Amino acid sequence: MENVEVHNGPNIRKAVVLLSGGMDSAVLLADTLAKGFAVTALSINYGQRHVKELVAAKTLAQYYQVEHEIISVPSGILENLKSSQSGHAEVPEGHYAEDSMKATVVPNRNMFLLSIAVARAIALEAHDVLYAAHAGDYAIYPDCRPEFVAAMQRAVEQCDWNPPELRAPFLRISKANIVALGLQLNVPFGETWTCYAGRRHSCGRCGTCCERLEAFHLAGAVDPLDYEDREFWKTAVQHES
Amino acid sequence: MENVEVHNGPNIRKAVVLLSGGMDSAVLLADTLAKGFAVTALSINYGQRHVKELVAAKTLAQYYQVEHEIISVPSGILENLKSSQSGHAEVPEGHYAEDSMKATVVPNRNMFLLSIAVARAIALEAHDVLYAAHAGDYAIYPDCRPEFVAAMQRAVEQCDWNPPELRAPFLRISKANIVALGLQLNVPFGETWTCYAGRRHSCGRCGTCCERLEAFHLAGAVDPLDYEDREFWKTAVQHES
Repeated sequence: MENVEVHNGPNIRKAVVLLSGGMDSAVLLADTLAKGFAVTALSINYGQRHVKELVAAKTLAQYYQVEHEIISVPSGILENLKSSQSGHAEVPEGHYAEDSMKATVVPNRNMFLLSIAVARAIALEAHDVLYAAHAGDYAIYPDCRPEFVAAMQRAVEQCDWNPPELRAPFLRISKANIVALGLQLNVPFGETWTCYAGRRHSCGRCGTCCERLEAFHLAGAVDPLDYEDREFWKTAVQHES
Repeated sequence: MENVEVHNGPNIRKAVVLLSGGMDSAVLLADTLAKGFAVTALSINYGQRHVKELVAAKTLAQYYQVEHEIISVPSGILENLKSSQSGHAEVPEGHYAEDSMKATVVPNRNMFLLSIAVARAIALEAHDVLYAAHAGDYAIYPDCRPEFVAAMQRAVEQCDWNPPELRAPFLRISKANIVALGLQLNVPFGETWTCYAGRRHSCGRCGTCCERLEAFHLAGAVDPLDYEDREFWKTAVQHES
């Protein structure tokens, strides 16, 4: 009953959650709601390789019955010849730990996404902005590292006379622990989308698929998604514990 | 002759300059070129009240014969009921020092603009990103303060494996000193646009017009722009030196 009061009371804490449609942000959404926040989910279409992620974000927002804003921005903004997330190059196969996965880096993606989320939070008078950077991202994505998050937290503190707080609660935990938390919260993992290839079923061979399958394995669970290849990740993983 | 070599040599330092079409960024563009950088000017159309600023940016880029990118983003991204820069409210009259001018704040505008400029700089392999925040902006715009710029510099340092450097060379100088520098560099101030009202001639009564006319006065010069009212600023200024 106390939860209900928190949800409807005048002092409820509002949060903007960046929801990509992937499994990490889905668990973050569930976790934020479980903590009693009033959530606006925010998805940003910046010319990703496919729309399956955005469809997943819509489905998740409906499932959790939260406000959902989708903002489309011109794909050219984050264009980079080195990037394969926005359709310019082949999706490399293999585990994230491999150097080739650095080809998937979109330049300054997180500062851009966070700047929009913070702007929306100020406009919505939300107290918090949450995103799902996690410990598995560091090696590839410079803008998922604790150093980047800490610097952005300081910048957000200075960006407005009444700034929201930037939070990345998964920053120090592994993807396997995110899976474990999601299982505990009954997150509908089958409605999330991770694969870079964007075909009917997840490929199981791109970096994100390998990372996801490994995380479920480490969490002692089976990923409910359909995969073209559920075994490839085992040969690609170089640092399995 | 040395200048020509610097401009065409393989080691020329590339810079992205945020060019709004206002007088501050026009002087910044001239100053950056005078220092021998190869410049890409970047203008971002985020749903400002009128297009006269963007037309001025185009004219300035042509005048200086620099590459010019114009990126249009959906106006809703930075929407805020408190903002009058994107067409939601009346433009307040009077000097910036007045509280009413806080109505012109667009939430998190500079983090958003800088995130795009940094992304473009990474894609273009530019070494520097320059923007024209100056000492006169602090009281109104939280994201023009030295604290914000310093925090953003740290964030930019962490955002990429090969990040550009964020620079705000006018951060500690007044608008009057920017006018003085522009006069020295022969900046075509008549081609810049500052007024929030966006009519045929500058109104002379909005905060930016008052600030600009005061700056020219303090620099001992006459602004070549046409104004509806060249005298109003004198009654509105509360802190003239």
